[in-house]
Amino acid sequence: MSKGDKVEVLDFWASPFCARVKVALEEKGVNYVASEEDLFGGKSELLLKSNPIHQKVPVLLHNDKPLAESSIIVSYIDEVWSSNPLLPTLAYDRAQARFWTDYIDKKVFETGRSIWGSNGEEREVGTRDFIEVLKHLEEALGEKDYFGGDAFGYVDIIAIGHSAWFLAYEKLGGFKVEDHSPKISAWIKRSLQRESVAKVLPDPEKVYQFVLHFRKMLGLE
Amino acid sequence: MSKGDKVEVLDFWASPFCARVKVALEEKGVNYVASEEDLFGGKSELLLKSNPIHQKVPVLLHNDKPLAESSIIVSYIDEVWSSNPLLPTLAYDRAQARFWTDYIDKKVFETGRSIWGSNGEEREVGTRDFIEVLKHLEEALGEKDYFGGDAFGYVDIIAIGHSAWFLAYEKLGGFKVEDHSPKISAWIKRSLQRESVAKVLPDPEKVYQFVLHFRKMLGLE
Repeated sequence: MSKGDKVEVLDFWASPFCARVKVALEEKGVNYVASEEDLFGGKSELLLKSNPIHQKVPVLLHNDKPLAESSIIVSYIDEVWSSNPLLPTLAYDRAQARFWTDYIDKKVFETGRSIWGSNGEEREVGTRDFIEVLKHLEEALGEKDYFGGDAFGYVDIIAIGHSAWFLAYEKLGGFKVEDHSPKISAWIKRSLQRESVAKVLPDPEKVYQFVLHFRKMLGLE
Repeated sequence: MSKGDKVEVLDFWASPFCARVKVALEEKGVNYVASEEDLFGGKSELLLKSNPIHQKVPVLLHNDKPLAESSIIVSYIDEVWSSNPLLPTLAYDRAQARFWTDYIDKKVFETGRSIWGSNGEEREVGTRDFIEVLKHLEEALGEKDYFGGDAFGYVDIIAIGHSAWFLAYEKLGGFKVEDHSPKISAWIKRSLQRESVAKVLPDPEKVYQFVLHFRKMLGLE
């Protein structure tokens, strides 16, 4: 791709899905503009036109051509800016990376939401479910530094955005990620030492305040 | 890949997800054994060991190495048996194919289930939702012969397995796919003329009888 590429992310600061796209662009050294969407006040015409089916962030506009769905966008970024590959080379390893991406996509945010989006028994069930998900991820990580092995790769990018919400889950669910999955906890600290991740991820305390505010809007507080 | 490859599919005859894997293998001319799982009587040890997280069919065993999640397996098949490619060549087109795959994965079976897995008002809502999904797919297909363009490709394989369930949705939902999405209806007929699809897809009438039987088991009839 040429240096003249125009790359824009339709973004929301707290979104773990937007974080993936921005971390991937940072890892590839791609210059981009992040345009903050007002998800509560009214989405932009550009967002509605670019992602008519889901009407969600993130959208990547690459030379004005829109792409939606964060894990698909990260694959696209990996294919287009092919130096410093994020997905593994071998087909079997790629399939495993896609398996864990799919697992994270189906489970992490949903079980997290069942903690912060509820109260009482429902929240207790959500907390147990989330801890179960963490344990599966802990097993997938195993003794490796990163999900990608020695190098920070595709699954790491998919997963790390969620970690900025973990403080909110911990405070509302009454548990510590570290107590249940020390390897995941160490992996988060290790990943946060990367410039790409440190630059992109929001402050977990700010996310927690946002979640509390959102809970009030939903009548949960 | 060598001709000595051992390829096994842990299968269930009526599963639209298993159908994808088998159609992809047929399209690539790969010899395989389909091992029918007894999903109601008891899953095999091999299935539980090969897909411990989801414990679902299909599983592809390629030289005894297991892979799970049907759309990921179809990607893997496309990468390993690389002649006659299923995914488009250009990164943008690949991302679009993955977008529609994701849409189909999230919507078609779920809205279909809300038709056959319910009664009364819930079923009416399900029927409306399913018809809405069909309309989105009709737009995505547009004037093309296949989702892949002139050639039967990745998204066609992802979508076609579901079509064997459409008769059941029509009969239980009281509508005709053809009335709402004539292009999808023509695409199904066109796709069924392919040897790979005709060989793999179950008889829609048999699927309908299976669905009725399953509804009885669930206390819905």
